[in-house]
Amino acid sequence: MAKRLSRSTIRLESCPSIQAWAAVGGKMEGEGPLADEFDFLNPDTTFGESTWEKAESRMMRTAVDRAFAKAKVCPSDVDIIFAGDLLNQCVGSTYGLRELEIPFLGLYGACSTMAESLCMASLFIEGGLAERTAAVTSSHFCSAERQFRFPLEYGGQRAPTAQWTATASGAALVGHSMAAPFVREVCIGSIVDLGITDAANMGAAMAPAAASTIAAYFHDTHLKPADFDRIFTGDLGLVGSTLLLELLEREGLPISAQHADCGLLLYDRQSQDVHAGGSGCGCSASVLCSHILPRVQKGEWKDVLFVATGALMSPTLVQQGESIPGIAHLLHISNTRGKEGM
Amino acid sequence: MAKRLSRSTIRLESCPSIQAWAAVGGKMEGEGPLADEFDFLNPDTTFGESTWEKAESRMMRTAVDRAFAKAKVCPSDVDIIFAGDLLNQCVGSTYGLRELEIPFLGLYGACSTMAESLCMASLFIEGGLAERTAAVTSSHFCSAERQFRFPLEYGGQRAPTAQWTATASGAALVGHSMAAPFVREVCIGSIVDLGITDAANMGAAMAPAAASTIAAYFHDTHLKPADFDRIFTGDLGLVGSTLLLELLEREGLPISAQHADCGLLLYDRQSQDVHAGGSGCGCSASVLCSHILPRVQKGEWKDVLFVATGALMSPTLVQQGESIPGIAHLLHISNTRGKEGM
Repeated sequence: MAKRLSRSTIRLESCPSIQAWAAVGGKMEGEGPLADEFDFLNPDTTFGESTWEKAESRMMRTAVDRAFAKAKVCPSDVDIIFAGDLLNQCVGSTYGLRELEIPFLGLYGACSTMAESLCMASLFIEGGLAERTAAVTSSHFCSAERQFRFPLEYGGQRAPTAQWTATASGAALVGHSMAAPFVREVCIGSIVDLGITDAANMGAAMAPAAASTIAAYFHDTHLKPADFDRIFTGDLGLVGSTLLLELLEREGLPISAQHADCGLLLYDRQSQDVHAGGSGCGCSASVLCSHILPRVQKGEWKDVLFVATGALMSPTLVQQGESIPGIAHLLHISNTRGKEGM
Repeated sequence: MAKRLSRSTIRLESCPSIQAWAAVGGKMEGEGPLADEFDFLNPDTTFGESTWEKAESRMMRTAVDRAFAKAKVCPSDVDIIFAGDLLNQCVGSTYGLRELEIPFLGLYGACSTMAESLCMASLFIEGGLAERTAAVTSSHFCSAERQFRFPLEYGGQRAPTAQWTATASGAALVGHSMAAPFVREVCIGSIVDLGITDAANMGAAMAPAAASTIAAYFHDTHLKPADFDRIFTGDLGLVGSTLLLELLEREGLPISAQHADCGLLLYDRQSQDVHAGGSGCGCSASVLCSHILPRVQKGEWKDVLFVATGALMSPTLVQQGESIPGIAHLLHISNTRGKEGM
């Protein structure tokens, strides 16, 4: 039975297990430092499809198929799939997964979606609402650019604070088993909006939400940053990461010794032209499913926090002069099931 | 502890209670047959805001505030809020609710969102994951028209099969108490796509999903249509309702004696120019929260099914020649907590 430490922080006493996972990426991801850890990299970012939206759908489906194959399960073995993406009407997910015939709960959490979907997938296991769940998300540079910014053909100049939307997807299966990694706690974030109106600086829009969720988690659990090997944020990039560390430092919660950002891990900023780092739902999802989960499984890292952040950015509302709300959801992922504290 | 009858159908043994609810609408809704049952109707569909998107956000916030006031709770009494809407990036929800500081889980289920959010809100109570949850959604005719079809100024001609997006919002609070209405079972739908490509005929795109979820529910529970006073679909309208009855009849599951469609209840098709009926997330949400829940509470209806349907319609994908996937989620809402069968 779940132990509720606050409104937002829930300890999962049954420690649901992340049973399998897969990460899929495109060309840029294949040229980055994590390339060797991906399950599949397609140098053809169309993924054989005729449009970018269909390419993203195909990529997400590939990630799901790979994760299912690794767990030796078929779609009918999965009770519920939680999915969402950045595209309008979440078509990456709905078109990508429509043939699977798995009960489907669609989410929108912008770039926080991997954490949101994995929180839900874990909570449904914890609450006895399902026996095996899946969580998946994706993003695609080309579909995101034309939807949120400019069509690629326009050749728009990017601001130094801008981030590069990852062409990537991550999928994970959750259930009960005795093998690590385990989900020990989750913290569901609230919307935080400190008034950032620059759509080319989403790291700054998301950093306050990340700080808020991380601070709430440490407050509620009485744990401290040193209890963790790593604290991963989703895709704050260089600008947002700096702000996050500053915000938490001010609250007396320094995490710089443990902090890493998926947006800064996925690409090599020296040799790859990604400005402030990677972003997009697929960024944190693919880093989780390529780089983080295998290390927790092996015990190289005993305990990590995975905090995916979303800029709930709307081109329409930004044009109307509105600021950009942020949100962050957190999971404590562990190599052990230890019941009390750490 | 939840009793899983199948992958999709879950019996909520603790019978979470819908503790309070509110329905808010605009001008057209105030001229319709359910006007007297709404909590608040604003003849000014701008809701005092400068854009349609902000109007929708304000309307959703009004519905939430009214529901909270009726239950005498403040935002800090609510553990988690599940919300989504039709607008890109779900800005009706994120901008509408950002000041509440309630842990927020964003959903995208198109017009199925009231059922999706209420399923999740109820399941979180059942699973011991929260003590009080909220579910809310909205739609606005003017924001939906310009996003999905044409700006109002264009004055586009509407097809006879087209539906009228409701300017409405419904919000509900779920927790444990001894007062009806109770949520007895939910059925989480899978995506169904039978190849409808006409974006002006969403009833037809959604009907197969509704039929699939309703058939799955009756199969899993061994209940039959006659066990219910009413079976409400979300917003199939005239075209979709006819198709639904035909599809279920073919499966030996006639529901015409119990069936009613929220899209056909909200407006008077004789005197109001809504073509095939109402639609939009706010349609089924506001009919639930104005017309259905009070009657179940009073015992006028003992048992109803609420089956909100979503056309996971994307203008981009329709332009690419793709068909429109549908989804439907179901709740059995009852006046009694009776444990076994009915």
